[in-house]
Amino acid sequence: MSEPAEKKENIPDASAGKGIPNGGSPAKTQEDFDLATIYVSDAQYNRNIYFDTSPQAVRLYLLYNHWALKVLLYFFILVNLSLAIFEEPALVSLPTWATMLVELLCLLVFTIRLVHYAKVIPREKFWKDPKNICIIIVLLLTLIDMIIYGALKAANLYSVRWSRVLRPLLLINVTEGRQLRRAFRSIRNALPEVSSVFVLFIFSVLMFSLMALKLLSKRGLKTIEGASYFTNYLEIVFDLYVLVTTANSPDVMMPAYNANSIFALFFILYILVNTYIFMSVFLAVVFNNYKKHLKEEIRQLVRAKRHKMARAFGVLQEQREEGGPPVVSHENWNKLVQQARPDISSAHRELLWRVCDDGNQGFIGKVAFVQLADLLNIEVITLKSRPHPLQSLIPSLYESKPSRLVCRVVQHRGFVITFDLIILVNAVFIGLDEENPLISNSEWVFLALYVLEILLKLYAFEPRAFFSKHSFWNWFDTIVVVAALIATIVNSALKSSGGYTSRQVLDIVFILRVLRLIRVVDGIKRFRAIINTLIRIGPAILTFGQLILVVYYVFAMVGMELFKNKVKFYEDATNPEKAYCGNPLLKGSTFAQLSYCKNNFNNVVSSFILLLELTVVNQWHVLGTGFATVTHKSALIFFVLFHVMVVIIIINIFVAFVLEAFFVEYSVGKGDLQTSLERKIEELELTVAQEKLEDNLVNAMETIDNDLGSGQSPTANLPSLLFKVASKRYRTVDALLQRMFEADLDPEDFAENDIPEDQAGNFENPTFGVA
Amino acid sequence: MSEPAEKKENIPDASAGKGIPNGGSPAKTQEDFDLATIYVSDAQYNRNIYFDTSPQAVRLYLLYNHWALKVLLYFFILVNLSLAIFEEPALVSLPTWATMLVELLCLLVFTIRLVHYAKVIPREKFWKDPKNICIIIVLLLTLIDMIIYGALKAANLYSVRWSRVLRPLLLINVTEGRQLRRAFRSIRNALPEVSSVFVLFIFSVLMFSLMALKLLSKRGLKTIEGASYFTNYLEIVFDLYVLVTTANSPDVMMPAYNANSIFALFFILYILVNTYIFMSVFLAVVFNNYKKHLKEEIRQLVRAKRHKMARAFGVLQEQREEGGPPVVSHENWNKLVQQARPDISSAHRELLWRVCDDGNQGFIGKVAFVQLADLLNIEVITLKSRPHPLQSLIPSLYESKPSRLVCRVVQHRGFVITFDLIILVNAVFIGLDEENPLISNSEWVFLALYVLEILLKLYAFEPRAFFSKHSFWNWFDTIVVVAALIATIVNSALKSSGGYTSRQVLDIVFILRVLRLIRVVDGIKRFRAIINTLIRIGPAILTFGQLILVVYYVFAMVGMELFKNKVKFYEDATNPEKAYCGNPLLKGSTFAQLSYCKNNFNNVVSSFILLLELTVVNQWHVLGTGFATVTHKSALIFFVLFHVMVVIIIINIFVAFVLEAFFVEYSVGKGDLQTSLERKIEELELTVAQEKLEDNLVNAMETIDNDLGSGQSPTANLPSLLFKVASKRYRTVDALLQRMFEADLDPEDFAENDIPEDQAGNFENPTFGVA
Repeated sequence: MSEPAEKKENIPDASAGKGIPNGGSPAKTQEDFDLATIYVSDAQYNRNIYFDTSPQAVRLYLLYNHWALKVLLYFFILVNLSLAIFEEPALVSLPTWATMLVELLCLLVFTIRLVHYAKVIPREKFWKDPKNICIIIVLLLTLIDMIIYGALKAANLYSVRWSRVLRPLLLINVTEGRQLRRAFRSIRNALPEVSSVFVLFIFSVLMFSLMALKLLSKRGLKTIEGASYFTNYLEIVFDLYVLVTTANSPDVMMPAYNANSIFALFFILYILVNTYIFMSVFLAVVFNNYKKHLKEEIRQLVRAKRHKMARAFGVLQEQREEGGPPVVSHENWNKLVQQARPDISSAHRELLWRVCDDGNQGFIGKVAFVQLADLLNIEVITLKSRPHPLQSLIPSLYESKPSRLVCRVVQHRGFVITFDLIILVNAVFIGLDEENPLISNSEWVFLALYVLEILLKLYAFEPRAFFSKHSFWNWFDTIVVVAALIATIVNSALKSSGGYTSRQVLDIVFILRVLRLIRVVDGIKRFRAIINTLIRIGPAILTFGQLILVVYYVFAMVGMELFKNKVKFYEDATNPEKAYCGNPLLKGSTFAQLSYCKNNFNNVVSSFILLLELTVVNQWHVLGTGFATVTHKSALIFFVLFHVMVVIIIINIFVAFVLEAFFVEYSVGKGDLQTSLERKIEELELTVAQEKLEDNLVNAMETIDNDLGSGQSPTANLPSLLFKVASKRYRTVDALLQRMFEADLDPEDFAENDIPEDQAGNFENPTFGVA
Repeated sequence: MSEPAEKKENIPDASAGKGIPNGGSPAKTQEDFDLATIYVSDAQYNRNIYFDTSPQAVRLYLLYNHWALKVLLYFFILVNLSLAIFEEPALVSLPTWATMLVELLCLLVFTIRLVHYAKVIPREKFWKDPKNICIIIVLLLTLIDMIIYGALKAANLYSVRWSRVLRPLLLINVTEGRQLRRAFRSIRNALPEVSSVFVLFIFSVLMFSLMALKLLSKRGLKTIEGASYFTNYLEIVFDLYVLVTTANSPDVMMPAYNANSIFALFFILYILVNTYIFMSVFLAVVFNNYKKHLKEEIRQLVRAKRHKMARAFGVLQEQREEGGPPVVSHENWNKLVQQARPDISSAHRELLWRVCDDGNQGFIGKVAFVQLADLLNIEVITLKSRPHPLQSLIPSLYESKPSRLVCRVVQHRGFVITFDLIILVNAVFIGLDEENPLISNSEWVFLALYVLEILLKLYAFEPRAFFSKHSFWNWFDTIVVVAALIATIVNSALKSSGGYTSRQVLDIVFILRVLRLIRVVDGIKRFRAIINTLIRIGPAILTFGQLILVVYYVFAMVGMELFKNKVKFYEDATNPEKAYCGNPLLKGSTFAQLSYCKNNFNNVVSSFILLLELTVVNQWHVLGTGFATVTHKSALIFFVLFHVMVVIIIINIFVAFVLEAFFVEYSVGKGDLQTSLERKIEELELTVAQEKLEDNLVNAMETIDNDLGSGQSPTANLPSLLFKVASKRYRTVDALLQRMFEADLDPEDFAENDIPEDQAGNFENPTFGVA
């Protein structure tokens, strides 16, 4: 980096500014920096918390946002949710008092966190926020339920732990559940339109069912089970609803079709209208609403971010000349960034400053300051050009001709191709029977080759760069190979010692062997692009994981209360009850015939697996009918409701999200800020040569972002530090979402004048519209 | 309409223009108008045919575009395709000579059409067009095949009519198959990207299968049929491929899951990666490519349209003053429009002129002229305000107080609600057993009520307006009620005469009764909006109908050759062969157990139904395995190929189309031209009062477009003619597609200067880039 010291001299004394209207005392106190830091980090992570600005509250708020407390909170939420494993009906039985005690502990932690939050924000705001009210109600109801349950249990009376359904609400309502709340909001927003399409769709199903009743009921047709076919209206409605999910096609049609080919027309028309057209319309409506409302939310988010940054500016601003615009000095800016992001290097900070202070004035105005939050969100990779440690230790050997030849061979494209071919041969060997001694011994050869490959690479490339945190495939490769080596050795040791092969160890060995093959994909450019896209949208998909978890949890709790122990699974194959899942009502049913007994609600794990099967849809009517047989016909409502909730709404939102993310990946280029940052890096001649990157073997393996580190040959005429913008990496899900819609957003939402003047100047807390 | 005669006087003599550089003789000949008409109609319907401009060829081209010849062509294409019904394996057997004769006739017609086309366009262009070459090759191959087949048949040798696979190619390659060709092009364009995702997806399936083989093959697990589970690699690959389509979920998992719950993890991971993520990625890639390429094509289309209109302008232009811009006079314009669209009224034509000639100059320049094609594509509804015929016949009675009261009652909202309630009661009655005399007699009451409703409406509203061509629901209502009346009378007559009820007549009665109920949907505004959207995208969906037809036809022909008569269906339930579909190989197979015998390739109709079942996906593996059992394992390739082609590609394109069409419906407002046309209508005070439309009952029933006609009360102070732009109706599929992308298109594509100067002025034929 070039001389920051020299520049500092250019900065006039900060105290030169005077007569600042809004509390800008020339020397900023630690409180000011605390406050500004909070504004910046709130803007950076899109937190919209209306906190108290008193120094005390600010310190509490800084503590509130500490990562350790958040991890602790999520840990206890997880513990609270996992209690379902140990509660009746339990996978692993624990005494009631034990689970109750743990739950009490969880409740205590949640209460403390809530009290902490209440101390941070003004009282009236606390009581106005539905999130807090919701948490308080959940905590109270849980406590009441626990007392009632404990009392009834003590009196040996039947009781239900109904408050368990409420547990996932905590996941939604904690301050950090922003993404999840947004996902739920987009569902809620889509609901009015989805429901009118749904009513129309149900109307269509009812009409078709009525027609089927009139046309088919009097013909005396039989299903293959010998039951009467299409004679009961409600059963027809259910059958045709199932047909929409395609789960009973073509079976539901066959009796009519076998009787007369013309009836196929009825079913073709039905499938066309309801399965194809209506289901596409559902996707279209969900997608459209999702897009529309998300766009609106992101717009508000961007606006709120500007407000917060303007506020941070207000705290740190000083007046350089009478009547001139307020500015922030380099010194104060530096101190702020240091506090907001202690992890970034001073060189990196200097780079960011250069981007902000384009004119090299030593201070920046509001416009340049406001973009700091976005700048901090751009991931810049700092590369240290270091010589290979062997070069420092034994330079004569490392620089010798054979050593250089080895390095060149390893960096050659042929090296990758050779190992790709070895992997393919390995794949064939894995497919063959491993009990053949030739095959099992060949495994040692392959392992040796892979270890050799890694050692060669470590020889040719700088090890710290090879294992830099962005080198996904290097890490993957090394871990898999080393793990396979250990597991194979353990396996042979077990085998030769006692002639006994541990099934578990062998399974691990097999999995690791197959995992190794995945690397071949990375060698092909087209595939890499697709995989990178998938990896990039991965974190955002996690939000849907939480969404699914919440919905599954609620359905699992209800399902366990309704259906527990109605269907039993017997490990013992000789048990006669196994044939009908321990419930005589299931004798001869399709459910039992297909040996679905393990698909039951007897514990939370099998409930989740069952719900996943219902999500996949196929045979869900068999599962549903099975549980309806052992309880009551109305139990089908549970299964239909699950289908509507999960398959029609949530899966469609998931598909909408994937589609949108893909379109953004394909169409959105770099943002303005990113471009200006890259330009600045280039200007300062700190950029990584692009040709180097392209030709470089190791780089070709590092797919997540084109981190370098090992690209430079051991010549040292390059600057000792290089920067590179991680081209398309998003630090937060919010950032991806913002990027998704930035292209569509009205440019004026980013304009400085968007901040109302009456709010921009003073230090009062913002009033954000977003909950 | 206001006085067009007066305006004509303003137009200076056309012969005043002189010294026009490019052949603009002052008096235009009929040849000129023919040529200009062709350019306009080509632009209007987006035909891109490079025709010869000699007067003779122009006349031939006009004939070539005659609707009757096109209908004839499509009729013969249909006949040619339907021959499959009568050829071996036949649904209705006809002697070979008969089908051959008909096919020869079809070939003759296609040849004549092609020769006609060859006369219209320049010879070198004809031979350069792959469409024509393709048709010629198909015709020749068909002829050769017919000769070989005939000869072999005569010699009683085995022979295959292989050229039948080529028949659908005619549908694609005829001049009129533009939409279909475009659909195929968008598939072809998506292929490179889809195939790289597909390879990655297959790689993932292969990896998972390898892992499954290693983990599960040695555990001695059994499927519920008792077969060994997951021991053969290829079978595992097939099973897991089927799992992607969800067709064998959860059955394929159950043996492993029953053995150990931990294996569920493997399947969950598999489903997540392959079923959810990869399938969404396929949709995303197809959608993205579809959008991208369609946009490009539409851009070219719009450009070509401008070229053509500029050419038409070139033919009719004249110079009003030395050095001034060339113009087209009102007279010539009038004559042109008259010839291009003989069906529109002179009042409508005058309206269009006013829109073009906004300054009332009596002539228009190029910019105004070029928009004519789009103007002609906007559907304008001409309304004649006519008194009710009864009012003219017996005014005293019709204008009397009770009569007016009846009219007011019918127009009241309560009238609609009353009949909606009646329909709901009727629905309940239909659901009840019709053999109860009370129920069957009630049918007469309902019929009488419905007839009364229609008569009352005809009394209150002007009948010609009530039955105007846009009043979809009025027509629907009347036809269904009258048909139900006739069918019910026929049914009772049959019953009372011989005590015998015809099943067919009764079925029709039932269908009509249920259809009647559909009308209730139209009363609710939200539903109407959804249905309108569906109806509007309907014609465009027909293109996909053709696409599906082509793909199904090819697969049906191949399937019939491969699998005909391998699986037989016996009507006779006592036949012992019925249990195994007449093929001992199927004894005990799931295929036979589920009585799928009628799902076979024994004739073209059952082939199509089978292919539809394969499209719906569920149980497709049972069907595929069934046919593999009776032939060879490799037969599964046919089924997998069908799945990849139809489900992964075509259905995704269909979904992409529906999504895009929905977004356009939601987001695109009115076009500029439409707005200016509407403004002009308003200016001329010929508009239909909007409040009237909203309040009007009959209008509330006419959903396709807000046609009026019956809205005005019998007072006559309105102009005798009213216009209304059919708000969102597209005359052609192309127009919908253009509208779909107009919003995204670069505005400069519409700019006049887009037409290269060297081409715009002279009369040479355009060189369109679009094939």
